[in-house]
Amino acid sequence: MDPYRIETSDSGSQVLDMHVNISGRSSMPGKMKGRKARWSVRPSDMSIRTFNPIRAIVDSMKVKPNPKKTMISLSIGDPTVFGNLPTDLEVTQAMKNVLDSGKYNGYAPSIGYLSSREEVASYYHCAKAPLEAKDVILTSGCSQAIELCLAVLANPGQNILVPRPGFSLYRTLAESMGIEVKLYNLLPEKSWEIDLKQMESLIDEKTACLIINNPSNPCGSVFSKSHLQKILAVAARQCVPILADEIYGDMVFLDCKYEPLATLSTNVPILSCGGLAKRWLIPGWRLGWILIHDRRDIFGNEIRDGLVKLSQRTLGPCTIVQGALKSILRRTPQEFYDNTLCFLKVGVEMEHFPEFENDVEFTERLIAEQSVHCLPGKCFEYPNFFRVVITVPEVMMLEACSRIQEFCEQHYHCAEGSQEECDK
Amino acid sequence: MDPYRIETSDSGSQVLDMHVNISGRSSMPGKMKGRKARWSVRPSDMSIRTFNPIRAIVDSMKVKPNPKKTMISLSIGDPTVFGNLPTDLEVTQAMKNVLDSGKYNGYAPSIGYLSSREEVASYYHCAKAPLEAKDVILTSGCSQAIELCLAVLANPGQNILVPRPGFSLYRTLAESMGIEVKLYNLLPEKSWEIDLKQMESLIDEKTACLIINNPSNPCGSVFSKSHLQKILAVAARQCVPILADEIYGDMVFLDCKYEPLATLSTNVPILSCGGLAKRWLIPGWRLGWILIHDRRDIFGNEIRDGLVKLSQRTLGPCTIVQGALKSILRRTPQEFYDNTLCFLKVGVEMEHFPEFENDVEFTERLIAEQSVHCLPGKCFEYPNFFRVVITVPEVMMLEACSRIQEFCEQHYHCAEGSQEECDK
Repeated sequence: MDPYRIETSDSGSQVLDMHVNISGRSSMPGKMKGRKARWSVRPSDMSIRTFNPIRAIVDSMKVKPNPKKTMISLSIGDPTVFGNLPTDLEVTQAMKNVLDSGKYNGYAPSIGYLSSREEVASYYHCAKAPLEAKDVILTSGCSQAIELCLAVLANPGQNILVPRPGFSLYRTLAESMGIEVKLYNLLPEKSWEIDLKQMESLIDEKTACLIINNPSNPCGSVFSKSHLQKILAVAARQCVPILADEIYGDMVFLDCKYEPLATLSTNVPILSCGGLAKRWLIPGWRLGWILIHDRRDIFGNEIRDGLVKLSQRTLGPCTIVQGALKSILRRTPQEFYDNTLCFLKVGVEMEHFPEFENDVEFTERLIAEQSVHCLPGKCFEYPNFFRVVITVPEVMMLEACSRIQEFCEQHYHCAEGSQEECDK
Repeated sequence: MDPYRIETSDSGSQVLDMHVNISGRSSMPGKMKGRKARWSVRPSDMSIRTFNPIRAIVDSMKVKPNPKKTMISLSIGDPTVFGNLPTDLEVTQAMKNVLDSGKYNGYAPSIGYLSSREEVASYYHCAKAPLEAKDVILTSGCSQAIELCLAVLANPGQNILVPRPGFSLYRTLAESMGIEVKLYNLLPEKSWEIDLKQMESLIDEKTACLIINNPSNPCGSVFSKSHLQKILAVAARQCVPILADEIYGDMVFLDCKYEPLATLSTNVPILSCGGLAKRWLIPGWRLGWILIHDRRDIFGNEIRDGLVKLSQRTLGPCTIVQGALKSILRRTPQEFYDNTLCFLKVGVEMEHFPEFENDVEFTERLIAEQSVHCLPGKCFEYPNFFRVVITVPEVMMLEACSRIQEFCEQHYHCAEGSQEECDK
């Protein structure tokens, strides 16, 4: 029978019959090449390699909250969930104006509208780190910005240096691309500065870039000017470019100053990643950017072209948000920024909580008994800490703190000969 | 000197000096591992492999309107560039309502809000191809939908089958991932149906999937039910899953019917890719989706999990558009869809044009005399018709029509005894 002639009636079973009848052997063309007539659809190695520890750890926490207490989640840093931290009215108005204009519904260039990139460039331009539109690539959130930077800088088999504790996406992206992750340490006793000697000792000929995350997620720490200069010195000495995750830039308390890394260097090539998510409280809108700082022309056109080509795989961010960028950057009032918050970190002296195996168990019991959900430090490669977000309403925050205090009082045990600790 | 102590004064030059002084030799830790103190930052193989011919042309175009270049924007199927085909007011109103609600600014699940996925599922659900929210993954445009499908189905070194002529993104994505592209032929003389024998002959043990694009970009052709059944028979026989690019689904003339591929199969696993871009005239908004049809559980949880994990690399589409999906899908009036037909067919009473052998000669002379280029209906097995695209601005359309009218007046001959026709 001609396999290409099919009765349109009852063709479903016809298709099925064919499948069953030939069961592994067939005279069809494809068969000549050894294709087995048996279904076996396997997920790709890349998809198997793609692992998100926050998802994995949080999803595997099968703990029922204490029914007597309403659940308080301090685990995911989304400032918008409770509605107590809305974005600015100028921001939403800008979007409405763009929608009314009807001029931003079509395809934009894959790296973003020229006019929108000009706005970002002029917003972040400064004498020590000049920027033009050509130095800006708009992306679908800061996550894609980081993905594009890793994808253009590193080949499978190379490695990148990543902070511990640090944002888990770096590892998720790198390992999905077959890039090795090497962890350098942040020192809690030095307000989470980098252990520079240890970091530099990790660098080898296969190191594609250093990821410097400042201000730090999850530590909430902000590097001093001199510490940033020391980091740049290592990069310059080792000739390793820097991927600067500066999504929390400018979101610092008044008592510390945020210095964009690129403003402190004249020779280290830097790809700075940022976006609207955190500072403008619209993480879901997915508008991020890459700022290319390359005053010594070390990246050159090749890296720039590489980024452009990679952006063409899935064309840029939503054009409505792109169109609204100008007003968002120019018209958002300073008071709005002043009202936004960062993270709070809490350490756990595990020796005083012998009941608990580790931080994961600590946080699980915290849910079971107090219905307060915090992320175990393990999510950030930093066991025996837990992360608390403080973007929830004040009332809820106070309630959460008192529950955590109650929990600690119930489970705290003194170490021998440390009575004073108990008096604290 | 301690390389980690730096004078904060003139540190810029300090950093530079270090770099220069050590010139290739150094006693720094990293050096032990043979890292050269010479800058050499090369773009990754993946970025070099990535080439998107359409974006390469379009993105290099000046955004300023240039009448001579408007033809190119037609070639990327963007109906919005001239502003003569706006989206529906219900669509923009839905976005404004979502902005006002303030409830869609936060992070959504990486595969999209459950409520939004439910809307897409119920919109495309039918008895022959049932869908639930768990079968829907929202993506940053149909481009990312196709990217995720290829990324989960194929490993480097495997191959996929792609139509010729066909959408260039398939090749761009596949080759950037190290996946081989094999081209199967569409037959113009059979209104662009697939050469099934030739397609099946390309399948081997390394074939990860068939890409079936219906309705066809760029051909504009719509496969008949029986042709789709024959395609499914090949997939079933060869046990190759199908990636169905159905972004133009439902955008067909009344006289031909679009059949979603999944409604015709009970056993072939199908990932159907679509989105808001074409039918709702908002390609820039970047909202697409993957519909998972797997009634024989051949993809199973592994492929589903793989897609979820891959979506976690860069979290989903803009949440404002996600929030507006419900109203967009439910409230866009039928008249809007009816008014946005891509093509216009114009009949030619050939007996009144004795000079011309057929529709091909008719259109050839139309170009020669009036510089108006239409495709003869023969291309679509509609002899004695010709095809005109109507996505051009009204002014251009009117000019074209007046030229066609002048052409007809010059060549129109009355049939005997039908004077009245000439008076029309």
